[in-house]
Amino acid sequence: MSITIQVLSGDECRTVLGRTSLARLACAKDNQPYIVPILCYFDAEGDALYSVAAAGRKIEWMRANPKVAVEVSEITDRYHWVTVVAFGRFEELTESVADDHLRRRAHELFDQRHEWWLPGMQKPAPDAPAQTVVYRIRIDELSGRRASRARE
Amino acid sequence: MSITIQVLSGDECRTVLGRTSLARLACAKDNQPYIVPILCYFDAEGDALYSVAAAGRKIEWMRANPKVAVEVSEITDRYHWVTVVAFGRFEELTESVADDHLRRRAHELFDQRHEWWLPGMQKPAPDAPAQTVVYRIRIDELSGRRASRARE
Repeated sequence: MSITIQVLSGDECRTVLGRTSLARLACAKDNQPYIVPILCYFDAEGDALYSVAAAGRKIEWMRANPKVAVEVSEITDRYHWVTVVAFGRFEELTESVADDHLRRRAHELFDQRHEWWLPGMQKPAPDAPAQTVVYRIRIDELSGRRASRARE
Repeated sequence: MSITIQVLSGDECRTVLGRTSLARLACAKDNQPYIVPILCYFDAEGDALYSVAAAGRKIEWMRANPKVAVEVSEITDRYHWVTVVAFGRFEELTESVADDHLRRRAHELFDQRHEWWLPGMQKPAPDAPAQTVVYRIRIDELSGRRASRARE
């Protein structure tokens, strides 16, 4: 019984990001990592992941240190899985004019999926609009691996 | 449509850790977080998660900075999910006499599940015994939340 592990190309990683909306986001403060599940949407044009969250620990930490990692995986069983890790930087999309087109892009991506829910949010967005932070993760580096059953 | 978010007690968090073996581990180097899926097994007695990995980036990073976060979640749909985050510290279980009982405990936990596979491993363990690192995460702090559909 053996498993073949393949390294994914950047394009293969982007394909996985493009079809998966559930991810795990890790941020860090004073070298203490923190991790939460998030929903995010990949925008191939800007090579960025868009998401929304209620203000809270992860937003505070990312404002202080924008370095993050995002992990997406599709795990069928022990012999068949794909996992992609992106290193990137948090960018808050404020209500300023400069960020307007990016906020609109974020809302387009969210609306396409009809999935305005997030484990990272304390409340559904419509109940707490004032506390909602729209942000994106600019991807600096992508890596991924795919496991499959070796032919014997 | 509204979602009720409940904060889990420490015991409820431990119950979730005890029944789930797939987790995400975040570690950090120079405030850059990294994140990988791992299989780990919760030992309620020692309040620790046991795992095994091939030597590689995450092991190097955790040797340099033992502060980690581990996230476990059970996501049924947007209205029903549980997520638990543990802050903890990496402890490598070496082949020394002092660590012998802990390594045995780790192997007991792994054997109970018959799941010697890990996305975090380059190769199945039997192919690369010399590079395999057995470790545990001592839990310092636990938090968790459960979402459910509000009765209306």
